[in-house]
Amino acid sequence: MIRSIFGFIVVGLLVTSCTSSPKEKNQVFEPIKTVVPQRPAGQKDVLQLTAPKLETVRVGFVGLGMRGPGAVERFTHIPGTQVVALCDVLPENVEKCQQILRKAGLPEAAAYSGDTEVFKQLCERDDIDLVYIATDWIHHVPVALYAMEHGKHTAIEVPSATSLEDIWKLIDTSERTRKHCIQLENCCYDFFELTALNMAQQGVFGEVLHVEGAYLHNLDPYWEEYWNNWRMDFNRTHRGDVYPTHGFGPVCQVLNIHRGDQLQTLVAMDTKAVNGPAHILKTTGETVTDFKNGDETTTMIKTKNGATILLEHGVMTPRPYSRMYQVVGTKGYAGKYPVQQFCVLPQQLDRSLLPEKFDERYEVTLTNEAKDKVMEAYRSPILTKELEEIAKAVGGHGGMDFIMDYRLVYCLRNGLPLDMDVYDLAEWCCIGELSAISMDNGYVPVEIPDFTRGGQDKVKGFKYAFAE
Amino acid sequence: MIRSIFGFIVVGLLVTSCTSSPKEKNQVFEPIKTVVPQRPAGQKDVLQLTAPKLETVRVGFVGLGMRGPGAVERFTHIPGTQVVALCDVLPENVEKCQQILRKAGLPEAAAYSGDTEVFKQLCERDDIDLVYIATDWIHHVPVALYAMEHGKHTAIEVPSATSLEDIWKLIDTSERTRKHCIQLENCCYDFFELTALNMAQQGVFGEVLHVEGAYLHNLDPYWEEYWNNWRMDFNRTHRGDVYPTHGFGPVCQVLNIHRGDQLQTLVAMDTKAVNGPAHILKTTGETVTDFKNGDETTTMIKTKNGATILLEHGVMTPRPYSRMYQVVGTKGYAGKYPVQQFCVLPQQLDRSLLPEKFDERYEVTLTNEAKDKVMEAYRSPILTKELEEIAKAVGGHGGMDFIMDYRLVYCLRNGLPLDMDVYDLAEWCCIGELSAISMDNGYVPVEIPDFTRGGQDKVKGFKYAFAE
Repeated sequence: MIRSIFGFIVVGLLVTSCTSSPKEKNQVFEPIKTVVPQRPAGQKDVLQLTAPKLETVRVGFVGLGMRGPGAVERFTHIPGTQVVALCDVLPENVEKCQQILRKAGLPEAAAYSGDTEVFKQLCERDDIDLVYIATDWIHHVPVALYAMEHGKHTAIEVPSATSLEDIWKLIDTSERTRKHCIQLENCCYDFFELTALNMAQQGVFGEVLHVEGAYLHNLDPYWEEYWNNWRMDFNRTHRGDVYPTHGFGPVCQVLNIHRGDQLQTLVAMDTKAVNGPAHILKTTGETVTDFKNGDETTTMIKTKNGATILLEHGVMTPRPYSRMYQVVGTKGYAGKYPVQQFCVLPQQLDRSLLPEKFDERYEVTLTNEAKDKVMEAYRSPILTKELEEIAKAVGGHGGMDFIMDYRLVYCLRNGLPLDMDVYDLAEWCCIGELSAISMDNGYVPVEIPDFTRGGQDKVKGFKYAFAE
Repeated sequence: MIRSIFGFIVVGLLVTSCTSSPKEKNQVFEPIKTVVPQRPAGQKDVLQLTAPKLETVRVGFVGLGMRGPGAVERFTHIPGTQVVALCDVLPENVEKCQQILRKAGLPEAAAYSGDTEVFKQLCERDDIDLVYIATDWIHHVPVALYAMEHGKHTAIEVPSATSLEDIWKLIDTSERTRKHCIQLENCCYDFFELTALNMAQQGVFGEVLHVEGAYLHNLDPYWEEYWNNWRMDFNRTHRGDVYPTHGFGPVCQVLNIHRGDQLQTLVAMDTKAVNGPAHILKTTGETVTDFKNGDETTTMIKTKNGATILLEHGVMTPRPYSRMYQVVGTKGYAGKYPVQQFCVLPQQLDRSLLPEKFDERYEVTLTNEAKDKVMEAYRSPILTKELEEIAKAVGGHGGMDFIMDYRLVYCLRNGLPLDMDVYDLAEWCCIGELSAISMDNGYVPVEIPDFTRGGQDKVKGFKYAFAE
C-alpha cells in the first residue's frame, strides 16, 4: 500500500525500478522517498542556534501526569530557575506539583487545568522563557508549536513527534521563530552512554562501523497507568518502531549524525501482533482484529559514511529491560546490556587501565573493576564530580534526568547552543513513520530525509558547548 | 546489479513493481525470487529419510587440517565406529591423525594425500558408510557429491555450501541417491541451546515471535592459520553473511522451520569493508580496493507464521565472542550472551524453579543458580547424564562437538532419521548468497526458496528420533 504523507504521495522505489532495465549494469533499486517541504525564502537553519543569555530560566510545565512531577521536582534543585506555571488537564495533577514546590520552600506557581486547550493560556504569558512539555505523545506538537509561536523555547518529552508532518512543522517553526526546540532524550545523559561517547570521540574504538540501540521493556503491567489509555491506543493504531529515541539518540551522537555523517536508508520488519490484542481482550473483553503494531520491530539503517545502525522496539513481551546500546568500532567495542563491557585492542588504552596479564595478540574484554577504571578515566566533560553527586542524590532514572535538565538550563543561562537540536529531534523521531512505510510496502528501503535541508556538514562532530 | 544464478536471471521485484500501479490498493513490492529447479520426475524428498541400520559405522575423513583431527579423536571415543580412511592434501595432516588412532590403541587407517582429487579414491572404497568432510568451504560440495554418488552418507562441516547452485546440487543428489547429507552444526548441541529448545517445545516461552543468532568473533589473530589463506580470500571475494549457521541453526530448530513454519523473506545490510583490506595491507602490503565483504552484516528474516529472525555476522572487529542466541516469546525469553538469562512470567515455571520472593505482576529474570535449576529441570531428552559426562571429558567446544557426533552415529546405527536433514543444511546455508543479492540490489527483500519443494508441512515440529 502506498502511504500518503500530508497530501503528497510517497515516490521512489516504484518509479525508479520501473524506469530501470534489467540490462543496465549495477542497477540498484532506489529507496522510497518521502516529501521534503521546501524551506521558505529567507528562513535559515537553526544549527548551533543560540539565544540571549537568561539570568533566570522561567519555566512553565505542561503535562503533569507521569513524567511531569519528576521534572518539577528536579527543577527545584537547579539554581537559576523559577517554576512560573503548571498545567495539566487534571487539577489534582497540578496540585500534586504545587505540593512539590511548597515542600521545597518555593512559592506556588500559576495553575492551569480543566481541558486540553488550557495550555494556550500558559504559553501566552509574558513571564515564561521555556515551556517544558510532558504530555502524552499526541499533544507534544500542538503545545510546542503554540509555545514557539508565542516566543517560548520548548523542551519536549520523547518521542517529541510521531509523524513526518509534525516533525517538519516543528523544524519550520523553530527555524522561523529562532526558538530552541529540544527533545528531552534522557538516555543521552546516562553514565555509560556518556562515557562510551567520550571514548568514541577520543578514538578508543577506532572508526565506529556499527551501533545498536533499542527499547525493550515489557509494558504489560503498566498499560493501564497511561491517561485515557493513550499508549496502547497508539500501538493499536500505529505500526512501526514508535518509541525509538532512547536507543537511537545516544548512538546517533556517537556517529556524529548531521555533524559529519548522515542517515540515508532504512529497512524495517516486524512480528505479527499477539500480546497487544491479547492484553485488550484480557482487560476489556474486546477482540481486536486490526491491531497495527507487531510485538517486536527491527530496523536497519545505513549511513552516508558506510556505518550501519540496528534498532529494536519491543514493549509487548516479557524480557529483561534493555536499550541494547552497542558500539562496534575497528579497534574497540562497548556494550551495555545485560552487562556493561568494553573490549579493545590493548594498544587503545593506557597500560594502567588494562588487566595485569593479557595477550598482546588478542582484544581485551573489560568488565567490573577493570571497566570501572575506564569509566573514571573517560568521564564525560559535562559530568563534574559535583554534578554526578547531586544528580545521584536527586535521582530520576539514576541521575540522568537531572543531568539532562541541568545541561538544558546551563546552556540557556549562558546563551549557548543546546546539546541536541531540532534536527536531532527529527532524525530520532522519524523512525516511527518511516519504519511503517518500509513494512507497509513489503520491507523495502526508505530514504531518511536530510532534515537540515543542506546543512549536514556545517557542524564538524558532536560537541557540548561550555561557557568561557 | 542483477545477480545471475547458474545461468538464470534473478526475477521478481523489478518485474512485479513494474507491473503494479500506484493506484492499486494494498500494493506491496514482491521480493526478488531466485530460481527453484524442478524436481526430476520420480525423485522424492528426503524428509525423515532413514537408511538400513549399521552395526558399525565405518568412517572416512576428508580434510584433516583444523576441524578434522578433533573429529577423528572424538570418534575414537564413540562405540560402534571404525575409522577406515584418512584423507588430506598434506600427508603430515594424515600422519597427525594416524597418531591419534595409535594413541587410542586402534589400527592405522588407509591414508590418502597429495592433491585435491585424492579424496575420490577414498569415496570409491566399498568399506566406508560415512564420509566426514572437514575441508575448506569451497571443497565441501565436490567431496560430498562424489561421496553420495558412490553410495556414502555424508556429514559436512559448516557452511556445507556457499552458493544456491551448490545447495540445490546437494539436495538433488541426496534425494536421488537416498543418502544422508547432514550439516555438522555443532552449536545445535550446546547445553544452553539444547535446554532452551526443550523449554520452547514445552511451551515455557509461549509462542516464539522473535529469535536472534550470530557469529561475532574477531578473526584478526587467526586469518593466517587457514590453509592457503582460503577464509580471508572468501571474504575478499564474497559479500554477505557467509558464516550464518552457528547462530541460525539453533533458532531455526526453535521455530520448527520446514516442520510447521517456513522462512519467507530476507533483507540484509552491511557496513563498508575496513578491517579486511586493512589486514591484507598490514600482512602482505597489498592495497585491496574491491574487498567484497563488509566488517559487519545484519540480516532480517520473516517467517510464514509471522515470526522474525535477526542474524549478525562480524569477524573483522575486536569484540567479545557472541552467537547472540535469543528467543523472544509471548510468555518468556532466553538469552545467552554475554550472560545466560531466562525471563518468564511466573506461571510459566514450577514454583520450585522460581526465586523465594517475586512479584506475580511482573516477569521474573533468572540468572546463575536460579538459571541452573531450570537448566537441569529442562535438560534435553538427548542429553543423558552419561553422555554429558563423557562429552565434557572428551571435549570439543565444551562437549557439543561430541554430542553432535554421538547423535549422528546413534541415528545411523539405529536406522533413524538424522537430527538435521539436507533441507536444514539448505536453509541455514542459503543466507550467504541471498543476503548478497539483497544488498547488491539496494537492501531489498529476497524470497527464501522452499527447498523441500512442497514438503514444508509434512513433518509436524522438530523432534529427535530415538530407538524403540
